[in-house]
Amino acid sequence: MDRSIRVLRVGQRYVRDDRTLTHLCLVSRALGAESIYLEDAEKDVTGTLEQVNKTWGGEFKAVLGASWRKVIKEAKGEGRSVVHLTMYGMPIQDVIGELRGLERILIVVGGPKVPGKVYHEADFNVAVTSQPHSEVAALAIVLHEIQGGEELKRAFPKSKLRILPTAHGKRVVEN
Amino acid sequence: MDRSIRVLRVGQRYVRDDRTLTHLCLVSRALGAESIYLEDAEKDVTGTLEQVNKTWGGEFKAVLGASWRKVIKEAKGEGRSVVHLTMYGMPIQDVIGELRGLERILIVVGGPKVPGKVYHEADFNVAVTSQPHSEVAALAIVLHEIQGGEELKRAFPKSKLRILPTAHGKRVVEN
Repeated sequence: MDRSIRVLRVGQRYVRDDRTLTHLCLVSRALGAESIYLEDAEKDVTGTLEQVNKTWGGEFKAVLGASWRKVIKEAKGEGRSVVHLTMYGMPIQDVIGELRGLERILIVVGGPKVPGKVYHEADFNVAVTSQPHSEVAALAIVLHEIQGGEELKRAFPKSKLRILPTAHGKRVVEN
Repeated sequence: MDRSIRVLRVGQRYVRDDRTLTHLCLVSRALGAESIYLEDAEKDVTGTLEQVNKTWGGEFKAVLGASWRKVIKEAKGEGRSVVHLTMYGMPIQDVIGELRGLERILIVVGGPKVPGKVYHEADFNVAVTSQPHSEVAALAIVLHEIQGGEELKRAFPKSKLRILPTAHGKRVVEN
């Protein structure tokens, strides 16, 4: 299946949390999403992403400035299923069969400030355990489970550097 | 198999990164590790963990103050396999069969400042993709893969609150 997965971040904390934002972007990129929707105020991260694409390849994109309402509405309009990650949702292991059948997905990653409306607009509210932990970890496991591990084998074309996996040490080559 | 998994964090950044540290602790707890080893300077997080245990159950522990050398040495002394997460390591999908066979594991989570010696002391250097992303995400996927999803069904005894998974909304009960 030629899957298309995009990520939307909603409900940022009042205190800026740049590290978590960067992690969410890089995990989306590394684990097979094609883009992440961010608020305008988060544009600082786009420089980091451009640099990572340039060095490590691929065409992952950050899309700035659309409200979450608009992103969700447009996603639904183009037949995308909305999968919201929340510790209150249905266990991932109970819904993964259905999720794997979806070709076009918008994964919504929340924080403590997610509006109630997101829970109702989502086609799936999905929990990676019902324990408090990390939206970065939840996103990683859901991307991994939906793609059944295929995302781990993905190539990132046009990179400047490439790692040669090794048992002990570091091996990097220039392309 | 009655698996025992512990986590060690090595190579912190010079700038304190409390959010990532908290995420690493909570992911270790939620996804089936029994404890995490931290440096003394990171003791602030233990209050958060105590509060989470009290509210959401379980007996996850942060162990403070041992050097990484000592923790790795002791782990090996008690027959624990050392699994170091690094983008330079062998692909997780190539070594997961071996990792699943291990009963006692110390997962070492690094950062940019991991000493070269860790790469050589580790029994396995494991990569979750050879792309730069997040130690939180890498830890989550490795815990998930080693335990084959069993960790998602884990109970956390003696909790004050418990979530009832639901398709749309939030349901929490007091025990």
